[in-house]
Amino acid sequence: MTIPAPDREPGSPVDRAARVALTWLAEPGNRTVWSLIQRFGAPETLDRLLSGDFPNGSLRSTVTARMAVGDARRVAEASLRRAERLGARIVVPSDDEWPTRVDDLAGLELDTGGRINQDIRPPLCFWVRGAPPLHETLERSVAIVGARAATSYGTHVATEMAYALAGQNWTVLSGGAFGIDAAAHRGALAAGGRTVSILACGVDRPYPLGNSALFDQIAEEGLLISEWPIGAEPLRHRFLIRNRVIAAVTAGTVVVEAAARSGATQTMSRVLSLNRPAMVVPGPVTSAMSVGCHAILRGNPYARLVTSADDVLEEIGRIGEYLTEPPRGPDHARDSLDEESALVLEAVPRRGLATPEDLAATAGLSVRTVLQRLTLLETAGLITRRENGIALAPQHHPDPET
Amino acid sequence: MTIPAPDREPGSPVDRAARVALTWLAEPGNRTVWSLIQRFGAPETLDRLLSGDFPNGSLRSTVTARMAVGDARRVAEASLRRAERLGARIVVPSDDEWPTRVDDLAGLELDTGGRINQDIRPPLCFWVRGAPPLHETLERSVAIVGARAATSYGTHVATEMAYALAGQNWTVLSGGAFGIDAAAHRGALAAGGRTVSILACGVDRPYPLGNSALFDQIAEEGLLISEWPIGAEPLRHRFLIRNRVIAAVTAGTVVVEAAARSGATQTMSRVLSLNRPAMVVPGPVTSAMSVGCHAILRGNPYARLVTSADDVLEEIGRIGEYLTEPPRGPDHARDSLDEESALVLEAVPRRGLATPEDLAATAGLSVRTVLQRLTLLETAGLITRRENGIALAPQHHPDPET
Repeated sequence: MTIPAPDREPGSPVDRAARVALTWLAEPGNRTVWSLIQRFGAPETLDRLLSGDFPNGSLRSTVTARMAVGDARRVAEASLRRAERLGARIVVPSDDEWPTRVDDLAGLELDTGGRINQDIRPPLCFWVRGAPPLHETLERSVAIVGARAATSYGTHVATEMAYALAGQNWTVLSGGAFGIDAAAHRGALAAGGRTVSILACGVDRPYPLGNSALFDQIAEEGLLISEWPIGAEPLRHRFLIRNRVIAAVTAGTVVVEAAARSGATQTMSRVLSLNRPAMVVPGPVTSAMSVGCHAILRGNPYARLVTSADDVLEEIGRIGEYLTEPPRGPDHARDSLDEESALVLEAVPRRGLATPEDLAATAGLSVRTVLQRLTLLETAGLITRRENGIALAPQHHPDPET
Repeated sequence: MTIPAPDREPGSPVDRAARVALTWLAEPGNRTVWSLIQRFGAPETLDRLLSGDFPNGSLRSTVTARMAVGDARRVAEASLRRAERLGARIVVPSDDEWPTRVDDLAGLELDTGGRINQDIRPPLCFWVRGAPPLHETLERSVAIVGARAATSYGTHVATEMAYALAGQNWTVLSGGAFGIDAAAHRGALAAGGRTVSILACGVDRPYPLGNSALFDQIAEEGLLISEWPIGAEPLRHRFLIRNRVIAAVTAGTVVVEAAARSGATQTMSRVLSLNRPAMVVPGPVTSAMSVGCHAILRGNPYARLVTSADDVLEEIGRIGEYLTEPPRGPDHARDSLDEESALVLEAVPRRGLATPEDLAATAGLSVRTVLQRLTLLETAGLITRRENGIALAPQHHPDPET
């Protein structure tokens, strides 16, 4: 990178305004714009584009069309003024609170059916509403994403999982949609934890309107963030561009309910491309809302099934720190018996008494072995010795097929 | 193996009776007995044991205790006579209908927490009720196993899966328990297919009694099979010994609902040890009856999630032959658009009309590009050209977040 003049340094007002203007001139994540900034810095990149110096025709047509609509510098200035009035701030890579994890997108290569994906580079800036510092808030964060048309099962699981993660001091992050996204935010807020909504439109007009009260609460207690300037509309393709940021800024992403080939499954493919923990909550195979989840698990050896916040922390936590216990059935002393003891115990009748000789014949063991094993079984509280023989201990009547 | 006299050859009446007697003297799968038979044949192995010639003390105590109860040869003869009266037959390894896949158990090595598992060798014989030949029936078979205390979800999935597999000429195989086992048999029978119940007791007294009508129907249209002689009781440990046969005789095993550390999870560990397809149906993470299923999927990289009979056939079938289609969302022509076309389509307002110049400005593309892409979009039926501009085709009003 060439050395910029002091008033054009990264983080200077000129740099911030240039990043906003560049985000407006091309969609966020644009591969060419990002490369130019790496080489020349944002102010000079903006100068070059506005003076008609384009490295390729694709960027030329994109930028030229936008320039026909308005003056990029004036649009950026107006957007920055509106942000100030709204109490929103701009965060750029040179700021202390820049979430550095998102820069991993710089190394992402995706080949989607022969066409190189243009919009996968890191954001040029973030617009932020909410007090907590961005980097610190996102460092311990987990994304919970999923279907808008979630079932009550999905919203229940998302809420519980977010509640438990927030209760363990993890930030929950999601989009802003109805269904799983909203359930995740509500779960985190219910736990008094932090939650972050990443939007695909301006932070002044979070979409959908039906979640307005939720967005206000998130802005109050967590963060609303976006790459798009104040006033930007939630166009369809923006959600897909936004999804790469969900994948990149978090320690891992959980999908709870997703239809086949949905936005959530696209997010998970970004997560897998970034080698982040890609976690999937299964559901009934009879539910259309779990088809996408099961397809991810069947199709990707690195996708991991999770059933709880503990499973999630095991996947994303340092080895050992969050290690969950393996699931256990009822704690039967009989499960830990050696085979001869198990045979003896099995030979004890369910009702009434048996002599050691009876037990030896039934179990196919010597009387001596039976007597040895009975001592062990008595110590384990599985049998009782009575005057006329041996009986099962009252609480250990066995179930013949387990 | 030493060469036996003609009347003691494998498959001779003496060999059959010896195998029955040996099964009675030690539980099926016994490692030492199986090794002796490999070396000496069944008749000589029986002679040796009955004359007090034991290779180790463990087998000595087992056999001696049984010998105290009865005469092994007479027990075997009585059992064979009862089988004949019942219309059951004995199948031994030299018979044409022996299910050879079960012999893979000969190579199985399990180290269960430091103790070598004794009861994992192949069966010495099978008792069979039902007309279809054993080998042919089991060659194209899938086991469906799971919890007795199944939920309506689990029994529904097991029934549907068995119905679909039987409908594609696969034999369904299971135990005989309430819940998933019974649902699998009922599904196969409903499809007019073959179903096999592998019992852990004599085929004369299938357990549990509550499934008697079902067992009768299975014996009529499929097979009831067991390693245990006529009259044998369903002792608890026999189910665990039996499970290795479920794993070994089938082309693959599906578990539908299982509690943590249950019989079904033990079966799946046998399946995995044998490198057979180990398939698991997921369920709600809120269901105790799916905890074991999810634990298998989390704990074993080779366990495979399946959601349908098609998935099962994909796992067990030859590559390509049963390959299922990847799940798809609603078939949107828009999903296959290139990026520029998608941008143009996105720019078309949801209500009203737009000119190509409007679209170029909104999409950030040149007017020339927009005009090219509009032709493609019109061909795909996504937009319509009207006199005053371009509109969305009626059926393609987009949903902003997918």
